[in-house]
Amino acid sequence: MTTVFVLNGPNLNALGKREPGIYGTTTLADIEAGCRASGEALGIDIDFRQSNHEGDLVDWIHEAADAASAVVINAGAYTHTSVALHDAIRSIAPKPVVEVHLSNIHAREAFRHKSMIAPVTLGMICGFGPMSYTLALHALAARL
Amino acid sequence: MTTVFVLNGPNLNALGKREPGIYGTTTLADIEAGCRASGEALGIDIDFRQSNHEGDLVDWIHEAADAASAVVINAGAYTHTSVALHDAIRSIAPKPVVEVHLSNIHAREAFRHKSMIAPVTLGMICGFGPMSYTLALHALAARL
Amino acid sequence: MTTVFVLNGPNLNALGKREPGIYGTTTLADIEAGCRASGEALGIDIDFRQSNHEGDLVDWIHEAADAASAVVINAGAYTHTSVALHDAIRSIAPKPVVEVHLSNIHAREAFRHKSMIAPVTLGMICGFGPMSYTLALHALAARL
Amino acid sequence: MTTVFVLNGPNLNALGKREPGIYGTTTLADIEAGCRASGEALGIDIDFRQSNHEGDLVDWIHEAADAASAVVINAGAYTHTSVALHDAIRSIAPKPVVEVHLSNIHAREAFRHKSMIAPVTLGMICGFGPMSYTLALHALAARL
Amino acid sequence: MTTVFVLNGPNLNALGKREPGIYGTTTLADIEAGCRASGEALGIDIDFRQSNHEGDLVDWIHEAADAASAVVINAGAYTHTSVALHDAIRSIAPKPVVEVHLSNIHAREAFRHKSMIAPVTLGMICGFGPMSYTLALHALAARL
Amino acid sequence: MTTVFVLNGPNLNALGKREPGIYGTTTLADIEAGCRASGEALGIDIDFRQSNHEGDLVDWIHEAADAASAVVINAGAYTHTSVALHDAIRSIAPKPVVEVHLSNIHAREAFRHKSMIAPVTLGMICGFGPMSYTLALHALAARL
Amino acid sequence: MTTVFVLNGPNLNALGKREPGIYGTTTLADIEAGCRASGEALGIDIDFRQSNHEGDLVDWIHEAADAASAVVINAGAYTHTSVALHDAIRSIAPKPVVEVHLSNIHAREAFRHKSMIAPVTLGMICGFGPMSYTLALHALAARL
Amino acid sequence: MTTVFVLNGPNLNALGKREPGIYGTTTLADIEAGCRASGEALGIDIDFRQSNHEGDLVDWIHEAADAASAVVINAGAYTHTSVALHDAIRSIAPKPVVEVHLSNIHAREAFRHKSMIAPVTLGMICGFGPMSYTLALHALAARL
Amino acid sequence: MTTVFVLNGPNLNALGKREPGIYGTTTLADIEAGCRASGEALGIDIDFRQSNHEGDLVDWIHEAADAASAVVINAGAYTHTSVALHDAIRSIAPKPVVEVHLSNIHAREAFRHKSMIAPVTLGMICGFGPMSYTLALHALAARL
Amino acid sequence: MTTVFVLNGPNLNALGKREPGIYGTTTLADIEAGCRASGEALGIDIDFRQSNHEGDLVDWIHEAADAASAVVINAGAYTHTSVALHDAIRSIAPKPVVEVHLSNIHAREAFRHKSMIAPVTLGMICGFGPMSYTLALHALAARL
Amino acid sequence: MTTVFVLNGPNLNALGKREPGIYGTTTLADIEAGCRASGEALGIDIDFRQSNHEGDLVDWIHEAADAASAVVINAGAYTHTSVALHDAIRSIAPKPVVEVHLSNIHAREAFRHKSMIAPVTLGMICGFGPMSYTLALHALAARL
Amino acid sequence: MTTVFVLNGPNLNALGKREPGIYGTTTLADIEAGCRASGEALGIDIDFRQSNHEGDLVDWIHEAADAASAVVINAGAYTHTSVALHDAIRSIAPKPVVEVHLSNIHAREAFRHKSMIAPVTLGMICGFGPMSYTLALHALAARL
Repeated sequence: MTTVFVLNGPNLNALGKREPGIYGTTTLADIEAGCRASGEALGIDIDFRQSNHEGDLVDWIHEAADAASAVVINAGAYTHTSVALHDAIRSIAPKPVVEVHLSNIHAREAFRHKSMIAPVTLGMICGFGPMSYTLALHALAARL
Repeated sequence: MTTVFVLNGPNLNALGKREPGIYGTTTLADIEAGCRASGEALGIDIDFRQSNHEGDLVDWIHEAADAASAVVINAGAYTHTSVALHDAIRSIAPKPVVEVHLSNIHAREAFRHKSMIAPVTLGMICGFGPMSYTLALHALAARL
Repeated sequence: MTTVFVLNGPNLNALGKREPGIYGTTTLADIEAGCRASGEALGIDIDFRQSNHEGDLVDWIHEAADAASAVVINAGAYTHTSVALHDAIRSIAPKPVVEVHLSNIHAREAFRHKSMIAPVTLGMICGFGPMSYTLALHALAARL
Repeated sequence: MTTVFVLNGPNLNALGKREPGIYGTTTLADIEAGCRASGEALGIDIDFRQSNHEGDLVDWIHEAADAASAVVINAGAYTHTSVALHDAIRSIAPKPVVEVHLSNIHAREAFRHKSMIAPVTLGMICGFGPMSYTLALHALAARL
Repeated sequence: MTTVFVLNGPNLNALGKREPGIYGTTTLADIEAGCRASGEALGIDIDFRQSNHEGDLVDWIHEAADAASAVVINAGAYTHTSVALHDAIRSIAPKPVVEVHLSNIHAREAFRHKSMIAPVTLGMICGFGPMSYTLALHALAARL
Repeated sequence: MTTVFVLNGPNLNALGKREPGIYGTTTLADIEAGCRASGEALGIDIDFRQSNHEGDLVDWIHEAADAASAVVINAGAYTHTSVALHDAIRSIAPKPVVEVHLSNIHAREAFRHKSMIAPVTLGMICGFGPMSYTLALHALAARL
Repeated sequence: MTTVFVLNGPNLNALGKREPGIYGTTTLADIEAGCRASGEALGIDIDFRQSNHEGDLVDWIHEAADAASAVVINAGAYTHTSVALHDAIRSIAPKPVVEVHLSNIHAREAFRHKSMIAPVTLGMICGFGPMSYTLALHALAARL
Repeated sequence: MTTVFVLNGPNLNALGKREPGIYGTTTLADIEAGCRASGEALGIDIDFRQSNHEGDLVDWIHEAADAASAVVINAGAYTHTSVALHDAIRSIAPKPVVEVHLSNIHAREAFRHKSMIAPVTLGMICGFGPMSYTLALHALAARL
Repeated sequence: MTTVFVLNGPNLNALGKREPGIYGTTTLADIEAGCRASGEALGIDIDFRQSNHEGDLVDWIHEAADAASAVVINAGAYTHTSVALHDAIRSIAPKPVVEVHLSNIHAREAFRHKSMIAPVTLGMICGFGPMSYTLALHALAARL
Repeated sequence: MTTVFVLNGPNLNALGKREPGIYGTTTLADIEAGCRASGEALGIDIDFRQSNHEGDLVDWIHEAADAASAVVINAGAYTHTSVALHDAIRSIAPKPVVEVHLSNIHAREAFRHKSMIAPVTLGMICGFGPMSYTLALHALAARL
Repeated sequence: MTTVFVLNGPNLNALGKREPGIYGTTTLADIEAGCRASGEALGIDIDFRQSNHEGDLVDWIHEAADAASAVVINAGAYTHTSVALHDAIRSIAPKPVVEVHLSNIHAREAFRHKSMIAPVTLGMICGFGPMSYTLALHALAARL
Repeated sequence: MTTVFVLNGPNLNALGKREPGIYGTTTLADIEAGCRASGEALGIDIDFRQSNHEGDLVDWIHEAADAASAVVINAGAYTHTSVALHDAIRSIAPKPVVEVHLSNIHAREAFRHKSMIAPVTLGMICGFGPMSYTLALHALAARL
C-alpha cells in the first residue's frame, strides 16, 4: 500500500482551539481524520505530521524521499519565506508534492500572495478549507 | 438539477491541436468530455464554453448570476491582466467561482504568478492538467 | 442639436441587479434616464451605450469623431489597463472627453488608483454616484 | 442658510498675476466671484480662503467641523504630500469634502498623479479650470 | 503561392483620418496597398486585416496556424498589455511572426517601451512608418 | 526642577472632539492632565504644546535646546514626511527625544509605517494610547 | 497572581558575553533580573525564556494562550522575517502582546526597519535598552 | 540697484549654535555677513531671510516676483519634499532662482539626493559651505 | 555616392570564431560582405567598423556628422548601458541612425530589454541575424 | 592545535543521495573527508556539522566564540533569508568567518543572489564545488 | 604656481559644432579659453583635456594625484554610470574634485538625475553653462 | 606549460600608492609577484595585465580564447556595470574564468553588491586581499 506524507507547518496545531466564533471549530485532528478517511477510500496510507519548526519540515521531506510515494504539504507561514523548503522539495524531484492551503492565500495580505515552494510543486489547491487536503489526495491517487 | 458554467479563456481552443510532441494531445474537447463525465457522476449539468474575447467571459459570468449555481473558470491569459473579470466575479458574489489552470502558474514566467481574479474566487486549483477541472467540480459538488 | 456619447464599460450593465443591500438599487437604466433628463435641460442629444468589450468602446470613440461633439466615458475596469482606449481618445483630440466614475477610485484598491485614460481626457469627475454623469454633461454643455 | 468652506492651498494666490500669455488671466478673485455667484444661485453661503501654510489648511478643516456643512478644497501642491490634510479630513467625517483641481492632475508630472487626500474625500473634480469649483458646489448642493 | 497574414490592432483603422497636420495623411488603406505591392514583387499573397478587439487578433493568429506561412503583426496598444497575444503567438511556434510598429516605441511614453509579444516573435522592426511593414515582408520572403 | 517639552503635531487638537462612538472621548487636554500628573510624581516640569504647523514644531525643538532637558514628541502626520523635524531633532543631539504615538503606526496604512524622525530619536513607544506619553516620561525620568 | 511570558529570540543569549567595550556588559540574566524585580513590584509572575529557534517561539506563544495573561516579546532577528510569529500572535488575539527591542530598530540597517509582528501586537517599545522590557511590563500591568 | 532675495529654510537658524566640535562655528549671521559683503562688491542689494515654515518660503518667493531680480534659496529639508516650493518657483519664471546647499547633498542619506526644486531652478551649487551662497551671487551678478 | 557608417560594438569581433555548434559560423567579415553587397546594389558606400571601446564608437558617431549620410549601429552590450552613445547620436540629429541587433533582444535576459539609444534613433530592427543589417540599409536607402 | 567549525545548513545532508545523473554523486561525507584531509595538512582540527534548523546554526556560531578559531559556513538556503545568522556572526566578530557555496549563487535564481551574511563575513568563495571548502580552509590557515 | 586639471568627458568635443540654432555656438575651445582667463586671474595653471574614453578620464585622475592641486570635472554621460570614476576620485582623496555640468542635470531626463561621482566630490555646480567651470575655479582658488 | 591570464580592471594600478594609512601599502606589483610565485609552484605561466579601459579587458578576454587556459579577473568597478565583459566571458565558454576581489564586495555600498560577470564565471573569491588571487590560481590549477 502506498504512503503519502501529509505535512503541516507552523500554527496549524492551534487550529480551532480558541475563539470558535472567529476561527471556526475545525481542528487539525479533524483534518487528519478527514485525510485518513479519504486515504482509506483511495487505498493510501496517510502519515500525518505537524511542526512549528522549519527544520522539521525539511527533515520530513528528506524522509519522504524513501518512505513516501508523494507529499501533501500545508507549509503555513513558511510557504512565503522558506527557501529551505523550496530546496528540500526540489531535492526529492520528481516525487510529486502538492501544496495546499485552507484559505485562498491570494485573497489575503500581500505578503501571503507569493509561495516560495510553488515553483517546485506539482500543483496548488487552496481556498476549500479541509477539503483542500482531500482534493489533493484524490489528485495524487489518480497519479500514483 | 444544478448547473455549473465551465468557462475557458483565450487560446484554450488551440489546446492539443499542434505539435503534440511539445504541447501534448489533450484537446479542449477532451477536457469538456471529462467535465461532462464528472458532472454526470455528481449530478451537475455542465455548460462548457470558450472564447478568446474578454468581453464574452464577462458576459457569461453575468449570465451565470441567474443561470448557474457555480462557475469554474480557466481565464487563461486574462487571469493575469483582467480587472474586468475581477469585477464581474465580484458582482455575482457569493455565487461560488473556482479558478483552475492546467499548469502550475507559479512555476512559469513572473507575469503569470499574479492572478487578478484570485482575490474574488472561492479557491484555486492549478497544476493537475485536465484533472484541475474535475477536482473543481468535486469541490463545488460538495458545497452545492 | 449637439450630440454627446455617454459610453459605459464592463460590468456597468450589472449595476443594481443583484443584492441591493450591498450594491444599491440604481441601475444603468436609471443613470441613462438621468442623463437624458439633463440632456434635455441642456439641449444635448444623449447617445447612451454599454459594452463589456474593450474593442466596442474603441470603435465607439472612433465613431464619436464624426457623430458626436463630446464624449462622457465610464470605462469601468478598462480604465486601469487599457492603452487602446488611451490611444483611441487621443486619436480624436481635441474633441472633449470627460472621464467619470460612480465611486471615488482613489479610495479603493491600489490597482484602481491609476487611470490609463486620464492623461488624454479633459478632466475627471468621480465619487458622486450617478451625479458624476450629469455633472460631466453640465461641464461639457458650458464648453460646447 | 448652509455654509460651504472653499479652501485653497499654496500658490493659488499667484494665479493669473504674471505672464498671462502662459498662465492665463483668471485670478483667484475671479474664482471666488464665480463661487459666490454659484453659491447665491444654490442658496449656499461661501467662505472662501487661501493659504500657503499647510497648518492653516488643517486648522480650517477643523473649524469646518462646526462652522460649515461641507468643504471644497483645492489643496494645490499639498495634495500630493500631506498626510496631515488626509488626517484632518478624516477627523471631520462624514462631513462631505470635495477635492477640486483646475488642471487634470493625471495629465501632468508623475508626482502629481497621487492625491494623499483622495482616499478620504467624497469625490474629485479636476481639469475644468474654475468650473471645477462650481461643479463641486452643485454636487454638494444636491447632497445637502 | 505562400500567404502571409498582416494583422493590425486597435486604432490603426483611424490612421490618417483626422487632423493630417498632426497625424499625417497615410491611411491603413495606403499601408495595405504598399504591402500588396511588396507581396506581388515577392510572390507572397497578403491577407490584410484590422480589429479593435484583442479576441479577434487571437482568433486570427490561430487561423494562421493552418492558413498562412507567416504573420506580420502591428498589435498597436495590445502590444504592451496582452498576455493573450503572447500565448497565441507561442501556440503557433515555430511559425515565424514579425512584430512591426510605425513609430519607434522606445522613444515614446514609458508604458510603450515593453512589448509583451516580443519574447515570442522572430524579430521586431519599428520606427520606419509604413516601410516597417514592407521590410518585414522582405525579411519573411528571404526566410520562406 | 527639570523640564520636558511634550510636543504634539497636526490634528491632535481634534482628539476626542467629534463622534465619540468612533474616535473615543479622550481629548488632548486629558492627555496633558495625565502628563502633568506623571510629571509631578517624577519631579518633572511639563511644557505641553500642540500645533498643526510643521514650522512651529521645528521652532519648539530648537527652543528645547536651551529650555528643556528632554523632549517627548507625537509628531502626528509629520512623523511620516518631515525631513525638517529629522534635522531639527538631530541639531539638538544628544538631548534625548522620545517618539510616541497613540496607536500602533505599524498596524495602520503603509504610509504610516515609516517614521522620518525615528533614526534620530532615542526610542519609540506606540500603541498604548495616552499611556504612550506617560511611559515616555518614565523612560526619560530614569535617564535624566 | 497573573503571569506574563517574556520571550526572547535569537542571539539574545549572547548579550554581554563578548567584547564589553563594544556590546556593553548587560547580559540576558541581568534583563531577566530586572523583569523579575518589576514583576514583583507589579504583582506579576514572570516566565522568562530564550531560544534561537523560530519554532520554539511559536510554540511558546501557543502555550501563552492558556498559561499567561500577556506576552512581552523581543523576537530579535525573527522580528523582520517571521510570518510564523505574526500568525502565532494573531492566533492568541486578543491576548495582549507587546513588542520590545533594546535598540531603536528604525535607526539601524534598512532590513531592520520593518517588523512582521507589529501589525498584530498591542504596541512597540524600542530604544531604551533593558528598560524597554520594564516599560512594557508597566504598560501591561496597567491593562491587566 | 538690483535686489536679490537670499532665502533660508528650516533649521538653518540653528547653524553653529551648538556643539561646535561637531557642527562647526559658522552661524547664519556669518553667512548673511558674507552675502552682504559679496553683494556690496557686486552692486547687489541683499534681502536675507530665514524661516522654519514652508508657507513663509512660498510667500517670499511670490514677493520676489515684484521685489527682487533673482533668488538664492537654501530650502534645507524642504528641498527634498516640497512640491509647493517647486510650484512657487515655477510661478515666477523666468526670474532666475539658484539653489544652494552648504553640504554636498548627494554625499548624504539617500532621502537627500533628490531635490524637488532643481527641475525649476537655473542651477545648483552645493558642497562649498558658506561659499555656495557667494558663488551663487556671482553667478547671478554675471547674468543680471 | 552616399556613405553609410556601419558601426559594431563590443564582442562582435568574436562572432563565429569559436564553438560553431553553439554560436553558428557567421563571422563579422561575413556580415561586412553582406553589407557591401547590399550597398553596391543600393548605390551606398559602406564604411564598416568594429571596436570593443565605447569611446571609439562615440568618436565614430561624431565623425559621421561630416563623413556619412546615415549610421547603422549594432552597439552590442553598450546598447543597454551607454548614456554616452545616446548623447553622441543625439548630437548628430537629425542624421538618421538605425539600431540593429542580430538576436531579438526582447527575448533574452531582462538587462537586454532596455536600449539606451533607442530613444534617439530612427528605428530598430532586431532578430533577423545578419539580415537585420541589410534591412537597415534598405530602410536608409529609401530615405536618403 | 587550532579548531575550525565547518557548518552546513539545510538540505546539504541530502547531497549526492538521489538521482546522481542530475545532482552528482558527491555526498556531504565526501566533503567532510576532504575538509579533514586539508585540515590535517594544515594543522587544523575540523569540527564538521550539519543541520536543517536555523536555530542550530545560530547555537553553533555562539559555541564557536569559545571553541573555535574560525568558522567556515555553507548556510544553504538560510544564506538568503536569515537575519539571525547575520546577527550571530556579527556577535562573534572579529572571529573570522568564511562563507562558502558549492555552486556560483550569482548564476542561479535571483532570490539566491543576495547573501544576508556576506556583510559580516571575512569573504566568500563560491562555485568550486567541494573545493570551495578547502580553499576556505587554506585562506583561514594563512590567517590564523 | 598651482595646477588644476579641467577634465571633460564624452561628447563635449562636439559642443557648438552643429546646428547652432539648437545647441548654441559655444565650443569646448571657448570654454577652455574662459578657464584659462579665470586661471590667469586666480594664479592657477589650467590643464584642460577632453576624451570620449572612460579609461582616459580614470588615467587622468590618477595623474592628477601627483600633477595637480585640484580637479574640475565635467564627466558628461559617464557621470551617471561610472563606478570607475567614482573609485578613481576616491583614490586621490582628499585632493579636492569639483563636479560641473553646463545644464541643470536635475531638470533633464530621469537617468541624468543621479551622479555616481557626487558622493566623492567636494561639491557640484550645474546649470550655469560655461560659467559653471569658472565658478568651480573660484571655489577651488579660495580653498587652495 | 599552461598559461593563465590575470586581468585587472580600473584603479587597481593606483593600489598602495597613496595614503598607506588608509589604503594599505600593497601595490599591484606586489600582487603580481604573489601570483608569479604561486604560478611557479603550480606550474602555471602567469600573464598579468591591468587597464582602466573596459575595451582593453574585452580585447584581452578574446585573446585568452587562444592564448590562455584560464582567466582570473578582478574587473574592479566594471564588475558592477559591464554587460560587455559579461558577453566577452560568455563568448569564450567553457574556458574557466574566476572572479576575484580584494575586499568583500557584499559588505560595501549597495551598488557593489551586484556582479554583472558572476553569472558567466566559474566562481567568485572575494574578501581575502591579495590571497583572493592565489586562491583562484590554486582552484584553477586543480582543474586544469
